[in-house]
Amino acid sequence: MHLDPIAHNARVRLPDKLAHPPRGVPEGLELEEATARALDRVGDLQQRLYADGRYGMLVVLQGRDASGKDGTIRKVFGACSPLGLHIAAFGVPSTIERGHDFLWRVHQQVPGLRYLGVFNRSHYEDVLVARVRGLVPKKVWKARYDQINAFEATLTAAGISVLKFFLHVSREEQGRRLLERLDEPEKRWKFDPGDLDDRDRWDDYTEAYEDALSRCSTPDAPWFLVPADDKRVRDYLIARTLQRALKGLDLRYPEPDYDVAECRARLLAGKGAPPEPADVAP
Amino acid sequence: MHLDPIAHNARVRLPDKLAHPPRGVPEGLELEEATARALDRVGDLQQRLYADGRYGMLVVLQGRDASGKDGTIRKVFGACSPLGLHIAAFGVPSTIERGHDFLWRVHQQVPGLRYLGVFNRSHYEDVLVARVRGLVPKKVWKARYDQINAFEATLTAAGISVLKFFLHVSREEQGRRLLERLDEPEKRWKFDPGDLDDRDRWDDYTEAYEDALSRCSTPDAPWFLVPADDKRVRDYLIARTLQRALKGLDLRYPEPDYDVAECRARLLAGKGAPPEPADVAP
Repeated sequence: MHLDPIAHNARVRLPDKLAHPPRGVPEGLELEEATARALDRVGDLQQRLYADGRYGMLVVLQGRDASGKDGTIRKVFGACSPLGLHIAAFGVPSTIERGHDFLWRVHQQVPGLRYLGVFNRSHYEDVLVARVRGLVPKKVWKARYDQINAFEATLTAAGISVLKFFLHVSREEQGRRLLERLDEPEKRWKFDPGDLDDRDRWDDYTEAYEDALSRCSTPDAPWFLVPADDKRVRDYLIARTLQRALKGLDLRYPEPDYDVAECRARLLAGKGAPPEPADVAP
Repeated sequence: MHLDPIAHNARVRLPDKLAHPPRGVPEGLELEEATARALDRVGDLQQRLYADGRYGMLVVLQGRDASGKDGTIRKVFGACSPLGLHIAAFGVPSTIERGHDFLWRVHQQVPGLRYLGVFNRSHYEDVLVARVRGLVPKKVWKARYDQINAFEATLTAAGISVLKFFLHVSREEQGRRLLERLDEPEKRWKFDPGDLDDRDRWDDYTEAYEDALSRCSTPDAPWFLVPADDKRVRDYLIARTLQRALKGLDLRYPEPDYDVAECRARLLAGKGAPPEPADVAP
């Protein structure tokens, strides 16, 4: 199974906890195997995306702290060839970035044709953290939903598919993961005390996510709601959804735009030429 | 075993074919296993590089057409986490890029601290193809060796190690690989008739490579000569050399710059807090 996109103009309400296990998701060993199969296919399709050259794809990963964005990149996109993969992470904007409109820095990192791009956080932070922490006036962030939709429409019109995944983690699971980061010395560098401030604003973020998901899930650039309390379920669902989206592009190896026979003859006539394969056969 | 760097100021002469198998490289199944082990270690060390934050690394891949640059990226760097990996490919410069000095476009793609960056071709093309095809006057490309050394010294001074691999492919093996690209429909998109023009200039390129390797292998930014006729040997040697370089950085997980006990107490006192691990134990 794969995830269905959030319907255009649907009013999203995020529950505290998503049903687990989600219907239709295999369990145990079967889940591992199904994920591995899906990742194999994603790897193949990505190579074809690169060869084809007519399309690109942007995957946006959003979610609260410790919702598994990094883990998704390692597991799901680690199965892709680094050739043709472009990962961009967006943290607190720099002074220069703050001197520009909010789409300026993300636009520069958008994947081109052939490329599978992944945004680890994105322009959606500008209607999430910017809203919850009051970094800009309400009038400013309110106008951004339409600006985001227009921006993403420009990308899809240029051949870049846009898929957006919201990794839904429950408050309890986030608590467990943050505690783990504090208790395991090798994970302490991942912890940021600011994460606790955001955790205190849990409900404000829920509301901000609900609006982002409700207002910016378009037919061409849909949002997907990913149950992310179980990492294996998360990886499976993202892999399958990605597989389906890539398959939908009908990718193919392009026809050569040069004369194959002529190049072949020229290669075989040159110095140090390999024997014709036919000559090698007995 | 790993590769030794080309000595500083050595006068490099490239043979048509490198000795095969290279001394000290395991063979058969042992080679596969040794490569897998080295790649595992490289993956671990790269995660540590990312966590540590004090260093970065730039790997430059150069070699003739079909020498295996793409394959190396897939195999060796595919074993790394995409998080913290930055791949940049340099093709024919765009109009805008041609309006700048030759280091302008590569400087923008240099990995920052934490990152492992890979250049698929690089600024060295500006003393290779630019020289062989006469794209700039001799006076211009002659001055570039020193400019390159100064540029790379600036990177290493900023904590970015620089490792440069020249994938040495023989004329015969290149011929076989190009023929394969022409004969297998799924590989035809990789073939460029211009590759045959460069093949006709084989000796000119050899000379250009010899100069680049002789003049730009510095103690801080060394060149390594990789026998690349056998892909498995190539992957093994690059993986081992990379492993050694990363290990030499003495990477460690950083100490937290916040009060762990305080954050822990705050997390456990908050809403939806996880039970203390000690409470869970019987």
